[in-house]
Amino acid sequence: MQAARLHAYTDDMSEALRIDEIDRPEITRSDGIVVEVQGAGWCQTDNHIVEGMWTDYVEQTLPMTLGHENAGVVAETGPEVHTVSEGDQVICHPVMTCGTCRPCRLGEDMYCENLDFPGLTTDGGFAEYLLTSERAVIPLPDDVDPIDIAPHADAGITAYHASKKAVAELNPGDTAVVIGVGGLGHIGLQCLRADSAADIVAVDVKDAALDLAEDLGADYTVNSATDDVAAEIADYTDEVGAQQVVDFVGRDDTTALAPDIVAAGGDHHIVGYGGHIHEPSQSLVDGEFSYRGTLVGKYSELQELVALVERGDVDLLTSRYTLDQINEVAERLEHGEIEGRAVITP
Amino acid sequence: MQAARLHAYTDDMSEALRIDEIDRPEITRSDGIVVEVQGAGWCQTDNHIVEGMWTDYVEQTLPMTLGHENAGVVAETGPEVHTVSEGDQVICHPVMTCGTCRPCRLGEDMYCENLDFPGLTTDGGFAEYLLTSERAVIPLPDDVDPIDIAPHADAGITAYHASKKAVAELNPGDTAVVIGVGGLGHIGLQCLRADSAADIVAVDVKDAALDLAEDLGADYTVNSATDDVAAEIADYTDEVGAQQVVDFVGRDDTTALAPDIVAAGGDHHIVGYGGHIHEPSQSLVDGEFSYRGTLVGKYSELQELVALVERGDVDLLTSRYTLDQINEVAERLEHGEIEGRAVITP
Amino acid sequence: MQAARLHAYTDDMSEALRIDEIDRPEITRSDGIVVEVQGAGWCQTDNHIVEGMWTDYVEQTLPMTLGHENAGVVAETGPEVHTVSEGDQVICHPVMTCGTCRPCRLGEDMYCENLDFPGLTTDGGFAEYLLTSERAVIPLPDDVDPIDIAPHADAGITAYHASKKAVAELNPGDTAVVIGVGGLGHIGLQCLRADSAADIVAVDVKDAALDLAEDLGADYTVNSATDDVAAEIADYTDEVGAQQVVDFVGRDDTTALAPDIVAAGGDHHIVGYGGHIHEPSQSLVDGEFSYRGTLVGKYSELQELVALVERGDVDLLTSRYTLDQINEVAERLEHGEIEGRAVITP
Amino acid sequence: MQAARLHAYTDDMSEALRIDEIDRPEITRSDGIVVEVQGAGWCQTDNHIVEGMWTDYVEQTLPMTLGHENAGVVAETGPEVHTVSEGDQVICHPVMTCGTCRPCRLGEDMYCENLDFPGLTTDGGFAEYLLTSERAVIPLPDDVDPIDIAPHADAGITAYHASKKAVAELNPGDTAVVIGVGGLGHIGLQCLRADSAADIVAVDVKDAALDLAEDLGADYTVNSATDDVAAEIADYTDEVGAQQVVDFVGRDDTTALAPDIVAAGGDHHIVGYGGHIHEPSQSLVDGEFSYRGTLVGKYSELQELVALVERGDVDLLTSRYTLDQINEVAERLEHGEIEGRAVITP
Repeated sequence: MQAARLHAYTDDMSEALRIDEIDRPEITRSDGIVVEVQGAGWCQTDNHIVEGMWTDYVEQTLPMTLGHENAGVVAETGPEVHTVSEGDQVICHPVMTCGTCRPCRLGEDMYCENLDFPGLTTDGGFAEYLLTSERAVIPLPDDVDPIDIAPHADAGITAYHASKKAVAELNPGDTAVVIGVGGLGHIGLQCLRADSAADIVAVDVKDAALDLAEDLGADYTVNSATDDVAAEIADYTDEVGAQQVVDFVGRDDTTALAPDIVAAGGDHHIVGYGGHIHEPSQSLVDGEFSYRGTLVGKYSELQELVALVERGDVDLLTSRYTLDQINEVAERLEHGEIEGRAVITP
Repeated sequence: MQAARLHAYTDDMSEALRIDEIDRPEITRSDGIVVEVQGAGWCQTDNHIVEGMWTDYVEQTLPMTLGHENAGVVAETGPEVHTVSEGDQVICHPVMTCGTCRPCRLGEDMYCENLDFPGLTTDGGFAEYLLTSERAVIPLPDDVDPIDIAPHADAGITAYHASKKAVAELNPGDTAVVIGVGGLGHIGLQCLRADSAADIVAVDVKDAALDLAEDLGADYTVNSATDDVAAEIADYTDEVGAQQVVDFVGRDDTTALAPDIVAAGGDHHIVGYGGHIHEPSQSLVDGEFSYRGTLVGKYSELQELVALVERGDVDLLTSRYTLDQINEVAERLEHGEIEGRAVITP
Repeated sequence: MQAARLHAYTDDMSEALRIDEIDRPEITRSDGIVVEVQGAGWCQTDNHIVEGMWTDYVEQTLPMTLGHENAGVVAETGPEVHTVSEGDQVICHPVMTCGTCRPCRLGEDMYCENLDFPGLTTDGGFAEYLLTSERAVIPLPDDVDPIDIAPHADAGITAYHASKKAVAELNPGDTAVVIGVGGLGHIGLQCLRADSAADIVAVDVKDAALDLAEDLGADYTVNSATDDVAAEIADYTDEVGAQQVVDFVGRDDTTALAPDIVAAGGDHHIVGYGGHIHEPSQSLVDGEFSYRGTLVGKYSELQELVALVERGDVDLLTSRYTLDQINEVAERLEHGEIEGRAVITP
Repeated sequence: MQAARLHAYTDDMSEALRIDEIDRPEITRSDGIVVEVQGAGWCQTDNHIVEGMWTDYVEQTLPMTLGHENAGVVAETGPEVHTVSEGDQVICHPVMTCGTCRPCRLGEDMYCENLDFPGLTTDGGFAEYLLTSERAVIPLPDDVDPIDIAPHADAGITAYHASKKAVAELNPGDTAVVIGVGGLGHIGLQCLRADSAADIVAVDVKDAALDLAEDLGADYTVNSATDDVAAEIADYTDEVGAQQVVDFVGRDDTTALAPDIVAAGGDHHIVGYGGHIHEPSQSLVDGEFSYRGTLVGKYSELQELVALVERGDVDLLTSRYTLDQINEVAERLEHGEIEGRAVITP
């Protein structure tokens, strides 16, 4: 089968991946599942993987097929798979978990001590077929097209996961700030809108993104390229600040906003990871705010996100590309030229 | 009356405060209370105030009497005070709150929008008498000596507040790390011990502090001057990390431990504020941990701490000094030469 | 001034209250406030008070002016009132709290140890003027008519309070059941809709109420007079049950639904109090569900509800009556003939 | 092998079970495990099963081997078992779960939609060998004797689970009441003691049980056969009531205590199920308390309980009996004549 594989780390996205002909994966465990991939989203993290930015955090053996936002049709199942059958449409949670370690028993899939992460630590979904397991698949209703929904497998649940943590702390009358209304941010904003009655302020450098934010339910928008974000938030919140900030950018200049825009006792969620935090300890103490790191969501959160999609509460902007356009997609994302989320259709 | 007052910011602790003769404060509101101060703890924050380190965060008019850890006897009450009477022993929550703003209505005393903070924004307790209000005093049982308990008014509830946030996330089998077993840390450790069944690891640069930690219930100790903290915690927790870290130091080198010692989903609480956080956003994302700033505790938490003291669960190490020894205390704390907590007895 | 007062407990609503001429109340405390009442909602609880149903729970001295859902204009303020001035429009939280007891310090207004409850334990708002205190009033925006919003003072926050407890446990894909779409229920349903993305099922005996429920955002409705509620909920939830049930009726037959309709680990919130719970302990154990009693909401929750109203998320159905129509209102409510909420305009 | 089996429901405990010779169970799934049972606790629920009290709640096919509190040594493992090996000492969580349904993914083992409950719905551990699965076993340290710890498999985690729910709501200065210091209660009390700093009041009809309670850390005891429990609790708590009540009895007279002894906003946890709740809805509303049903704990909670045992925080009183003494045990428990927990050693 054809697969788009990383052979060497590089900053040149025009040669990010190579289309190889490799063997179709085989099931080796009783709960194994092979999915025929119909849609696989390209993520900013794919650029970061290509650049070698994850080598300090996980083990990677090259060449490796990338692609961690996968959806398709079940092609084959191991002998003890009970919840799906050949031909079922599924979306894949990004990780394969053991189901027996303590984090798995607590429902914390992303902390699984024996986790495989297709597209990050093992072969992923930019290929005709993907090897995964029963604990990683969620059946889809017949009227949902896997290609349309694929990016929810990672972008979606990461945004939902961050949003859910924020929602748990928000009351009506509170303010939530969304920084960055891109691939993840436009999903997170819709999740906040559907699941809370807080006032939502969207912050971005592009007016088009802010227009989209308004369409999706933002109550107020701030262009950070031209306006003073801290002053705007102070004004909007009567000097109280925003109880929750979800930062889909995570650059030095966005994390530096926290002491000025987060209300006492509030949180600045770090979802994007473009830069650093540099802050005096005294600043966190004086404002009693937190920087809360946010990883991909849990399997149960992907179920919840699918429920939101079925309710019509979350729309996803996608554009489709073939497997051999994959480096073009990588380049265009690097230059901020992708509308919504790019989905590869292998 | 005599009062120890700050006239000018300085790094020279030998001339930190000056003993002045000033008027005894007068009650101007129906809920006002004058307390005859019997004990007033000297805090690391007092050194920071003297150095001018709080001028960026709050407004200060000099000269100002310092002292925010106060306990004593009610000397006079306003006409609508109902909960205490002249002669009652009380400990003072460090701030005077309005009781009508939304944070007050939520029980969040420290976020009061109209807060006065004696010893930080108005005259404090290094004086014979302190002006405070009904919402700031907690009656003490007769058998408690206000001098012994005074430091709980700030050091105590700050440590308890941080501990309580950690306790809410700890289960048996989890590990809590206490960094810095000094004035606050030795209280926080006892609160963790009394209120949770987690395994507690104490970290300090002094063996004497670690011996104290063991006496107070630490299950394991690490001398960070001689041992590799990250390796020790990894070993102690079977590579999982500590679910909660309470950092009573807050220096660059202690905040930098977080990615290596905090378990996935865990928290690094910033209580001490000696330095900075410098960390890539990716690090918080990958480990899904948080830096959580921690301020002084609430009034209700001071009630809870007094209950712990009454149960015999928290002992406080104190040494007593007269008002004219106050600069000597400031100097000795600067050089780490104070045993336990210094209490001024005006 | 004129006031509608209870002189003797009775089951005959045609002579529930008597219109008396009494003195206008006077401020005796520094934080006292006299409100000129513009709207005062009549509540099912008023019928219960008239019937003597509260004498086992609180102390009442007759004659007493009823009316605990009050809104109007500040007519006079005590000397230490800072947050409102004469002429300001306000809605009144139903209880006057001391601000110093531990429940008050925790933000739990309804548990205040020194609470006065106008219309239940002291004179209420079915009168030209009401004596209340600074901690009980919330300023209203100029464009809100106090008469329209008055019932939120008790019906509204009770419904919001119950809804908020349910929302805290609801995820997308979960089901919330609202039993009884009347005065409180139609508010609670809107709060659930605004603040969660759960699927909402409304249950009532009247089709008109169910039509209203659909208009307000219910996803599914069940007429309990004609259909088998348990079977319908089982079917709607794929046999899982509803994670949260908010029971605005609280009769024997509605509380008896719990073991059959509440999902494992879920809650049946008791808001209405028309009857009893009769259930084997084993039933609660086997299904691990809870019966959770629900009282009036907190002051901070009334602020949150006002924010929802300002967002346009909660509409209130009201009809207006003059003070001398008050017994007619009592009778019509007894017979279920009031559309929405009746508001008296003294 | 020998197994003690239920052939017919009966109220005569002298003929509760019959010792049969049956085949040793065989592994049929890749994650199956056969445990050589060393200790199997006899539980009040076993009496209830014999009486037929569970037939309304679960499906049972007789004859069936009882025994749901099992510990022993791994005798055989399925081909995909990774976490334990033949010869390992293990304690068995009482249920076998699928690991794929939503409750399993949330960590809610007891709500598993495909659950098998050995000793309740399939053959249990009063036999030489027990068939279970990898997700049901927890390895034990070498220095723990499986016979000593077996009752923690159900009695222990049920008590711990209830205690944990209470602990989450308890602050220092609060009061927790334990009703019934028997097999479960004496464990629950120790869990409360280890994991909170609340004041603990133990209630029982036997002085010996109250003496034990004091030894295990109760701060105060009340003999409900001779004293007025409500008056005692009111006095002990300064009329506030107990924030949390854990009722290990669950009879009509213990559930009826709730309105009088539970503090506003508090909980009455139903663990024992000897009787009913009969209460006016108004009572739950007025006191805003909850009746919270409590089932067996989760797998992760059994891990936490094992950690408490390893810390030395929870001791279990047990007495040992051979398999052929099993009906004698059933009779003696029926008459309240078992000291601590009876463990069968097949």
